[in-house]
Amino acid sequence: MPGEGEGKAATLVKADNVRDLFDSVDLFLFDCDGVIWKGDKLIDRVTETLHLLRSKGKKLVFVTNNSRKSRRQYAAKFQSLGLSVNEDEIFSSSFAAAMFLKVNDFPPHKKVYVIGEEGILDEMQLAGFTALGGPEDGKKHVELKSNNLFEHDKSVGAVVVGLDQYINYYKLQYGTLCIRENPGCLFIATNRDAVGHMTDLQEWPGFCSFLFSSDNFQCFLNYIRLNYSPFVQLRNKLGTWVAGAGCMVAAICGSTQKEPIVVGKPSTFMMDFLLQKYNISTSKICMVGDRLDTDILFGQNAGCKTLLVLSGVTTLSALQDPANDIQPDYFTDKVSDLLELLGP
Amino acid sequence: MPGEGEGKAATLVKADNVRDLFDSVDLFLFDCDGVIWKGDKLIDRVTETLHLLRSKGKKLVFVTNNSRKSRRQYAAKFQSLGLSVNEDEIFSSSFAAAMFLKVNDFPPHKKVYVIGEEGILDEMQLAGFTALGGPEDGKKHVELKSNNLFEHDKSVGAVVVGLDQYINYYKLQYGTLCIRENPGCLFIATNRDAVGHMTDLQEWPGFCSFLFSSDNFQCFLNYIRLNYSPFVQLRNKLGTWVAGAGCMVAAICGSTQKEPIVVGKPSTFMMDFLLQKYNISTSKICMVGDRLDTDILFGQNAGCKTLLVLSGVTTLSALQDPANDIQPDYFTDKVSDLLELLGP
Repeated sequence: MPGEGEGKAATLVKADNVRDLFDSVDLFLFDCDGVIWKGDKLIDRVTETLHLLRSKGKKLVFVTNNSRKSRRQYAAKFQSLGLSVNEDEIFSSSFAAAMFLKVNDFPPHKKVYVIGEEGILDEMQLAGFTALGGPEDGKKHVELKSNNLFEHDKSVGAVVVGLDQYINYYKLQYGTLCIRENPGCLFIATNRDAVGHMTDLQEWPGFCSFLFSSDNFQCFLNYIRLNYSPFVQLRNKLGTWVAGAGCMVAAICGSTQKEPIVVGKPSTFMMDFLLQKYNISTSKICMVGDRLDTDILFGQNAGCKTLLVLSGVTTLSALQDPANDIQPDYFTDKVSDLLELLGP
Repeated sequence: MPGEGEGKAATLVKADNVRDLFDSVDLFLFDCDGVIWKGDKLIDRVTETLHLLRSKGKKLVFVTNNSRKSRRQYAAKFQSLGLSVNEDEIFSSSFAAAMFLKVNDFPPHKKVYVIGEEGILDEMQLAGFTALGGPEDGKKHVELKSNNLFEHDKSVGAVVVGLDQYINYYKLQYGTLCIRENPGCLFIATNRDAVGHMTDLQEWPGFCSFLFSSDNFQCFLNYIRLNYSPFVQLRNKLGTWVAGAGCMVAAICGSTQKEPIVVGKPSTFMMDFLLQKYNISTSKICMVGDRLDTDILFGQNAGCKTLLVLSGVTTLSALQDPANDIQPDYFTDKVSDLLELLGP
């Protein structure tokens, strides 16, 4: 039976078991890239599927580690793709950072210094916090010269670090000083993904949400070899890898010699927050994702049901590879398979 | 007896033991900040002392972790302070990076990508290597947009990372891609000092070469409390801390998930290189420094004699504090004490 043991091979969702899954779940938690969309294109019949789930009274939540956009900006993206998704249903790591401060009673008179982009600043403001830094500090410069005194705001009580394409020495220096000098200053990372993919992990079909780490690199190469040819041609395309939030986070670790509080996946903060917000037990949640090592593991760690879709980075052969020890409860090609199986 | 055990309390250099030290040493290895100079000022009677040592046939070598300058630029600094020091006698971490490539037969047709400043580029060129990046890439920008292909040079065989006040996303991205994609590409760090001090660690008497880490932070605070008052006034001045090379190095660790080869102190690479160059045994070398946890440890680890001078960051009380377990063989106020004791 699904859910009994994580070591058990995943079950293909079929007409005779789709009800077991559907009826036992009150909330579907969706990863976005490779599940809902690929780059700027919606995956086949996602709109109708989400509509069906809603019509059956299921709650929907969308989770992403990408901190560059705020929930509002993500809602606009959903809108632009013709999906009616409420801001309230979106959990980006930018929002998670703001919520972390909120639930930990971050004093309103303290400020937040942001090494990151618009999404984090937006979320901080929406949560009622005063945020400094971000894109605005992208043009500032530190002169390493005699008698230069680098001033920083002593009322900064948290430094939030995410992916920042305008990272510079000024911001690193500012964040470092706040964490080192301001008593009790928090160091929060939206996520620690080492690298991502150019264009917000958006434009490469099949690679949309593939984040590389030493652990999954070989698996990634195998994936390319299995799924694309000629391999050599594709090596050029790998140039679209981009340094991820993990790069900026590590820089601050390096200069402060401190470890951050991580609020994005695979940290359980977002899940804990969701459980409280929806007052729901994890056994009533199904995490739907295209990645074994983040989405499925994130769901399993929390005790959720898990459904792998093969519309993203994971192939059937990768799932069934004897070397793979992460088995979701269920798997299917794409979310709209639920639509087909459950009927209108 | 000095040198017999590192746990033994350091011996003050006096008239009756200065000969033991002097006669047994062929090469004096000097840290610069807090030993030779403080900021832009020479420490009392250093010129005459170095002259005496030379006249007695001693070899002199100057070692610094600072990668922002090349040996040539350091020689110019010595010159400007009235000291006649040859480039050959200077071992900066920028030079060490070039020498690491040299002794490891780095192929001349391969290129070196530099995240760092002029000093590293200079040393690479002097060693006959083709270097890219550095200050020139400080104004470049990566646009994280659809269909942007970030091109990098496939012939880059090493990425060298040091302190870079013009660090940006372009450089981080470039270095990341080289290390991740170019087969066998080396990742070299000049040093991993977490933070340094504004103005090349130069302008603050007594703090000149004090580099902070979680290990020595408390010791630093105690140092301030003991040596300066009022403490509160000084907290403002702490704003002159600057994120060190460790910050940039960690960023690349974060995005590549790899650890660098470190060539500066406390790595033994410089020492090994010196031993070979001078064909000398470590027992014939005396490391002279003002810091227990870098200079003295560096010397001790290599099996050198060690002499602590109190003209830099370490006070007598810090040396004699029961909590301090790094004991040099000898200690004295400043290098010119040798001059007084040995006579003209």
